[in-house]
Amino acid sequence: ILSELDPDDAADVLSELPEEERAALLESIPPAESAEIKELMSYSEDSAGGIMDPAVISVSEEATVSEAVNKIRAAEIDEDFFSVYVVNKDGRFVGDVRIRFLLTRPEGTKIGDLVDPDTIYVTVDMDQEEVRNIFSKNDLIVAPVLENDNKLVGRITADRIIEVAEEEAAEDLYTMAGTDADELDKISAFHAARIRMTWLLPCLIGTGVTALVLMFFYEKFGKGSSIVYTAALAFVPMIAAISGNAGLQTSAIVVSGLATGHLVALRVSQVFTREVRIALLVALSCGVIGGVACAILLYLKAPESTIKSVQLVFAFGMAMFSAIMVATTLGLFLPFLFRRIGIDPAISSGPLVTTANDSISVAIYMTLTLLLAT
Amino acid sequence: ILSELDPDDAADVLSELPEEERAALLESIPPAESAEIKELMSYSEDSAGGIMDPAVISVSEEATVSEAVNKIRAAEIDEDFFSVYVVNKDGRFVGDVRIRFLLTRPEGTKIGDLVDPDTIYVTVDMDQEEVRNIFSKNDLIVAPVLENDNKLVGRITADRIIEVAEEEAAEDLYTMAGTDADELDKISAFHAARIRMTWLLPCLIGTGVTALVLMFFYEKFGKGSSIVYTAALAFVPMIAAISGNAGLQTSAIVVSGLATGHLVALRVSQVFTREVRIALLVALSCGVIGGVACAILLYLKAPESTIKSVQLVFAFGMAMFSAIMVATTLGLFLPFLFRRIGIDPAISSGPLVTTANDSISVAIYMTLTLLLAT
Repeated sequence: ILSELDPDDAADVLSELPEEERAALLESIPPAESAEIKELMSYSEDSAGGIMDPAVISVSEEATVSEAVNKIRAAEIDEDFFSVYVVNKDGRFVGDVRIRFLLTRPEGTKIGDLVDPDTIYVTVDMDQEEVRNIFSKNDLIVAPVLENDNKLVGRITADRIIEVAEEEAAEDLYTMAGTDADELDKISAFHAARIRMTWLLPCLIGTGVTALVLMFFYEKFGKGSSIVYTAALAFVPMIAAISGNAGLQTSAIVVSGLATGHLVALRVSQVFTREVRIALLVALSCGVIGGVACAILLYLKAPESTIKSVQLVFAFGMAMFSAIMVATTLGLFLPFLFRRIGIDPAISSGPLVTTANDSISVAIYMTLTLLLAT
Repeated sequence: ILSELDPDDAADVLSELPEEERAALLESIPPAESAEIKELMSYSEDSAGGIMDPAVISVSEEATVSEAVNKIRAAEIDEDFFSVYVVNKDGRFVGDVRIRFLLTRPEGTKIGDLVDPDTIYVTVDMDQEEVRNIFSKNDLIVAPVLENDNKLVGRITADRIIEVAEEEAAEDLYTMAGTDADELDKISAFHAARIRMTWLLPCLIGTGVTALVLMFFYEKFGKGSSIVYTAALAFVPMIAAISGNAGLQTSAIVVSGLATGHLVALRVSQVFTREVRIALLVALSCGVIGGVACAILLYLKAPESTIKSVQLVFAFGMAMFSAIMVATTLGLFLPFLFRRIGIDPAISSGPLVTTANDSISVAIYMTLTLLLAT
């Protein structure tokens, strides 16, 4: 079965197997193929080397069109190809010649005269996300893969990049929800539950901190104003949910912008100014609307606490504004910070940051209530 | 500028302009090009017709290889192409011939003998997401676009599909966070803030409902057991956050599976059984861990309420279990339901569903606390 797979897929399959099985399988296939697969396995699965197809047709600069055509006729490549790659006499990559030129130019034309010296290439150690950005920016269908000394080692076609784009997109989605694609590897529910629990556990600790914050404030309020405390508590989920979502909106824009590379094109300072303005507008609207909603609910359901409710509404509105400003600031800066220190930026849209944000916003809210309403 | 763009990009740009400017621009370019752009504009921007490139090379079944080569030589197509499309004498699509065959076969060979009759094609009215799935499933580099009567009208290349995959992925991410890509159309912060507010407003109403639920229970608990009510309130954010995240984990798996088409391949009943098992395991773990955490926090911070705290912890554990089961069930079924009734499945990972889920889980928790701890 292994020798029917493309060498790059075979290498991926093999690298998942235990050492012994791998060696046994490699011995069972023709030596030429196993050498190719072994070389592919030496590249990281997520690098250009890991996703490339080593089957390329290369001709010398000195060859003629008819020599190149003979080389194509002799090559036993199943897959379709679109360009012939040109190398100089030292074996270094020079550029590519489109197959259509081989069809439409006289047979004696030198390949060196047809070559496009500005061919866009990728290097074996490039991350697949970077390769995808290069394909997407330059509308590429195929790109040659070079080693660092400009030696041609393979090619990557756009169909593989579509897979990469889908993989990366699914990973972002999973990270945002606090799980990962690994859980689909095995059908076992136990395995999947364990992966999800590794995300929910820190989340439990985080919400435990929120509960601690609420209990801490209970003591501060004292017996006398426990009615204010109880009324204030009813709005805790509102503060937490709205500020969490406002932060998530910002970080989704930033994470997706970083992933597709669109954000790098814009000037970062421009993005910051725009996001800060949006945050101010959103925080102001939610502060006012939330304050009014809080006032109406208090009037309807707890008229006995009217003495303090003006202060409570005011504290709530200010807390909503502050919590949204904190959450959007985190949503704006954390993806950049995480990328800088080598963590997946999508984590900043995940449950960990959302939970941390809950504790912060609740602490702000309770402090303001304590200061203003007791 | 317009005539330098590819016709499909030009059509996209034009369809964003007001009627008058569009007409003026279309008159300013050569009639042949404007006719092509007008036809492309008649297709929806998100359909195969909207993303296709109308420049194709087609030859008759009856032609020979050398006639096909002459046609390629005469064609003034800037972009690269990889296959020649073959039509029969009624102008209907028959299949494709790879350019390499034109190079390597004798000049007199009939095109009809080289044609691949199983060429995978797409139709003009197909949604771009469906087109992407076809490309991804069949590892395509290029596909012909046919009208419903099998007339060849254009082609789609994989580089365009990479863009589509990126667009769709970003849309999913935005929907999850409660915003959309439209907000990036204009630089105005006011415009973006308005779009985000349309998501936050229903979210405010939803959390308002949660506040109402909490107030309703305050009355039910009565003055005597207000200490139990206050202690229980401290754990509301924990119940809401954990069950919300557990639901999000499930819906992210389902949404991403639906988007990439992987889920359709698996048997739906299999996915359901697996997800229900995972939910049971996760709910059980969180119920137990959350209950213990709740017990420890209560012991540390509010030892005066020890009489009721065993019941409170028990109520909390059961509520955590129930809330997670409800949330994961919603996360599992809503994406399928939404797709059935024509709503984007990613909405089910968005703030609206999360907020609704908050109210439900808090109501469950308070009911159990009321029943067990007072």
